[in-house]
Amino acid sequence: MSKQLTVLEPEVCCAPLATATVPAEAAADLALAFKALGDPVRLQLLSMIASADGGEACVCDLTPAFDLTGPTISHHLKVLREAGLVESDRRGTWVWYRANRPRMASLSAVLDIAPTA
Amino acid sequence: MSKQLTVLEPEVCCAPLATATVPAEAAADLALAFKALGDPVRLQLLSMIASADGGEACVCDLTPAFDLTGPTISHHLKVLREAGLVESDRRGTWVWYRANRPRMASLSAVLDIAPTA
Repeated sequence: MSKQLTVLEPEVCCAPLATATVPAEAAADLALAFKALGDPVRLQLLSMIASADGGEACVCDLTPAFDLTGPTISHHLKVLREAGLVESDRRGTWVWYRANRPRMASLSAVLDIAPTA
Repeated sequence: MSKQLTVLEPEVCCAPLATATVPAEAAADLALAFKALGDPVRLQLLSMIASADGGEACVCDLTPAFDLTGPTISHHLKVLREAGLVESDRRGTWVWYRANRPRMASLSAVLDIAPTA
């Protein structure tokens, strides 16, 4: 199983942007994740993976959903994996992907807005 | 007051990625916002603006916080504004920025993870 998590410790990462200036170290990590999300195909891939029955999706099911080549899809999945947004493992012929749900939750928390400012 | 919101209607935007494949139109809009967040300086600028006393920050207070030129900071602020993440208005000499809190809340909701998948 390959894991390339880059999630920072809670004391560094993930205070909401609306509560304090984000420290430089956390900003670099968060920017990596948001940059990975900054592409429509990658957003669609992540949503397909995160919403898949059983919580994982085979690359063999992901690729046909796009009018893109296999290598292009693989590249996008690699970007998501290197940003810590998905995890993958190979079983036989195919690679299966799962969303890194704690990572997504951390990013969600960073953008969360307090009821009053 | 300049406004460049690109927030989509609720029926298009902002269902959590973990619940369904994001439609192409929403993916393009969301990717624009996440791409804008995919830079450490822009994340720090947004956090400084969103956490500022009174909910707004003067460019005259933002620029000195970075070892970057005024035009570079202005470029990053423009990217944030065009992605609908901040709003601005000029008062006299200076431009003041406010976070677009509904936009941030929408992006947070998109990345939110249900307790069980």
